[in-house]
Amino acid sequence: MKSFTEYLTFNIPERMALENITPQVERVIAMSGVQEGLCLVNAMHITASVFINDDEPGLHHDYKKWLEQLAPFDGSPARYHHNRTGEDNADAHLKRQIMGREVVVAITKGKLDFGPWEQIFYGEFDGRRPKRVLVKVIGE
Amino acid sequence: MKSFTEYLTFNIPERMALENITPQVERVIAMSGVQEGLCLVNAMHITASVFINDDEPGLHHDYKKWLEQLAPFDGSPARYHHNRTGEDNADAHLKRQIMGREVVVAITKGKLDFGPWEQIFYGEFDGRRPKRVLVKVIGE
Amino acid sequence: MKSFTEYLTFNIPERMALENITPQVERVIAMSGVQEGLCLVNAMHITASVFINDDEPGLHHDYKKWLEQLAPFDGSPARYHHNRTGEDNADAHLKRQIMGREVVVAITKGKLDFGPWEQIFYGEFDGRRPKRVLVKVIGE
Repeated sequence: MKSFTEYLTFNIPERMALENITPQVERVIAMSGVQEGLCLVNAMHITASVFINDDEPGLHHDYKKWLEQLAPFDGSPARYHHNRTGEDNADAHLKRQIMGREVVVAITKGKLDFGPWEQIFYGEFDGRRPKRVLVKVIGE
Repeated sequence: MKSFTEYLTFNIPERMALENITPQVERVIAMSGVQEGLCLVNAMHITASVFINDDEPGLHHDYKKWLEQLAPFDGSPARYHHNRTGEDNADAHLKRQIMGREVVVAITKGKLDFGPWEQIFYGEFDGRRPKRVLVKVIGE
Repeated sequence: MKSFTEYLTFNIPERMALENITPQVERVIAMSGVQEGLCLVNAMHITASVFINDDEPGLHHDYKKWLEQLAPFDGSPARYHHNRTGEDNADAHLKRQIMGREVVVAITKGKLDFGPWEQIFYGEFDGRRPKRVLVKVIGE
């Protein structure tokens, strides 16, 4: 069994943004030399997500608006108890649960085994500082 | 390390439906010959889910009603920007994020290592055409 | 390839609670002897979650309040059809979909490969009885 580990760093200038990281993950899989196996891609920070969906700007607008409705930003200590610790990002912890921490993707014949529109995104909900994503490949 | 890959195709006549696919996944695991390992089951389309829960029709009714409240269908271009591209399925992309893209399940002694009520479902949120689910087994 | 399987049991006295189970998972990884691989941790019951976030009591308060807003407890058979079966826990099945069934974590150099604040939690939404969590480690 082969294994390969890589860490990607993102520094998003906005509080919330969705960034297509498929090319970076493809590069890690190529480096791993794995032909058949699994690839885990996860946010290493708890106010960010890794998820798979469509690379369509209108949809990304819809996701951001929808997440803001489900878990509104409110930096005051009144709505969210987490913000009584001096943080202002409780909403980002909730948004990340909706969008998920990680994806596990199949590697078949050395490539991401994807449907026609699947793309991997880094979802940032409390940006403006460097954060890491882990890519772990195992297989043969 | 063994690996085995299979693609299941579903063509759901309704827009939204939840279908128990546990028997199909069990068949793939038996074909793989893997006794100890992991099995990834994921939707290959971005308006569908694979998830694990209970095979109880009342609960499925509750899921559909709840998802419709959290992310209502609206084919017009007014509410969802994604629907300005000519699509009418933005709501399905949101519903799929709540229910998830994939499950990873343990294989122990050649079987799905499941709790008493765990069953694997295909969740369709924009049906009426063939869509695929990937099953990837790795182990020994 | 090595594999190792362990079952953890939790008996939470409250209906809803979030419990840090990182030490138990670390113990299983040490027992497995795996240095490089993947670790699956999943709830074996369908009204419970395993998820990764921050061990901060204010945030846990926020999660519980938010989940109660998104999927309120209502034991009557009026709101949730699932509760017409004699159950009163339909809300717990919905809450678990938001928080997720499982996490897959990387093992690097024999340890959980975690960011600075990542901790693994058992999320219970219908407690007061023993329930199991599966930990499956594969790798080398």
